[in-house]
Amino acid sequence: MSSWNNNRYHSESSYAPSAPSLPDQYSNNNAPSNYHHAPPPPSNHGTGYYGQLSSSSYSFPQGTNPDVIRTFQMFDRDQSGSIDDKELQQALSSAFHNFNISTIRFLIFLFKDPREPLRIGPKEFAAIWNCLGQWRGIFERYDKDRSGKIDPLELRDALYGIGYAVPGSVLQLLLSKYGDGSGRRVELGFDSFVECGMIIKGLTEKFKEKDTRRTGSAKLSYDEFMSMVIPFLVSYD
Amino acid sequence: MSSWNNNRYHSESSYAPSAPSLPDQYSNNNAPSNYHHAPPPPSNHGTGYYGQLSSSSYSFPQGTNPDVIRTFQMFDRDQSGSIDDKELQQALSSAFHNFNISTIRFLIFLFKDPREPLRIGPKEFAAIWNCLGQWRGIFERYDKDRSGKIDPLELRDALYGIGYAVPGSVLQLLLSKYGDGSGRRVELGFDSFVECGMIIKGLTEKFKEKDTRRTGSAKLSYDEFMSMVIPFLVSYD
Repeated sequence: MSSWNNNRYHSESSYAPSAPSLPDQYSNNNAPSNYHHAPPPPSNHGTGYYGQLSSSSYSFPQGTNPDVIRTFQMFDRDQSGSIDDKELQQALSSAFHNFNISTIRFLIFLFKDPREPLRIGPKEFAAIWNCLGQWRGIFERYDKDRSGKIDPLELRDALYGIGYAVPGSVLQLLLSKYGDGSGRRVELGFDSFVECGMIIKGLTEKFKEKDTRRTGSAKLSYDEFMSMVIPFLVSYD
Repeated sequence: MSSWNNNRYHSESSYAPSAPSLPDQYSNNNAPSNYHHAPPPPSNHGTGYYGQLSSSSYSFPQGTNPDVIRTFQMFDRDQSGSIDDKELQQALSSAFHNFNISTIRFLIFLFKDPREPLRIGPKEFAAIWNCLGQWRGIFERYDKDRSGKIDPLELRDALYGIGYAVPGSVLQLLLSKYGDGSGRRVELGFDSFVECGMIIKGLTEKFKEKDTRRTGSAKLSYDEFMSMVIPFLVSYD
């Protein structure tokens, strides 16, 4: 993997066909630069982050697909108006993928209010459903060889396609967590692809909020830094 | 938990008996402030971070406890000079705790070179062993009621005692990941305590490296930010 650790993504990515073009004010800027340009990333996904959805409301957003409502109600067996991690795992497995439980917990952590118990209501469920639908579309578009797996180059292109120019060193660091330990080249199934995508998108969007002048860097207080990062950690038990 | 979400930790902590005293230049600074004052945190722990230990060396550091060497050799069954995650889990279970495998993977990610396969050599093993010994000492010192569990106040005091004044909102965000989903007050066993401690210590130390003037805030490029954070994420599969 070490030949992978140079800056070729950086230089390539400046010219990648899928890269969003830079506005004039960035054209002389080699920064992490166009991480913040784009076809706007999945909106429901975006709105789901950071407790903007309240799990205290039990009503679905207007225009929610009836299948989504039916699925939620089917797994909300005690009619409590919210479902737990295992119920969410079952609810998503038929429509999307049999996500492992820690991916499910990661989704819940990103979409629910952190002060609420580890359960989600209709709004979060609809947001997660829409978000996964969008990631599936991206996965299928960039899995060019139809292998059902995304390789590192396809992942880079996929992230680039939704507006995130991620340096090769950063991608390598992230992908190093998805290997089988052998050091062999990593290929991501949909499960890991969604995790990587949401980590990159979520952290980048949080950084953008602080990089108000779009310089590619931001001044953060210790509290801000910690509060930005911790939502992306999962508990390991 | 919401009464927990105000700033009382912040204000309390400024006067907590276990708080390291502020040097003069900080005495008018209400910042996230004394996250970077000390008793210096566990040194072996510190040196373990960010690939400073090479898994390519198979020799133990001078003065390594013979028990540590014996334990490593016992579990390096193929005599390869390195052990994998399951072997590490077994090697640590007798001396410390039967850590769950994702905690073990987290330890490995923090101590090994990210470009290396998911295995650790003698140096990393000795560093992890020392690090866990230090965390166990801290756990026992702050588990004042000898419950075998650390509650949020004891965790705050423990982190304070090793020099990290963590805002209540940040601690709450972190602890929200360790609940059983019921929203009840969280208590941490040694396993989760080590995770929380290493997350806080590791992220804070990374932030300190960028906060060279010790102002409580730091300017980060996008690449720096992402590279600081990703080592603390685990893969969810």
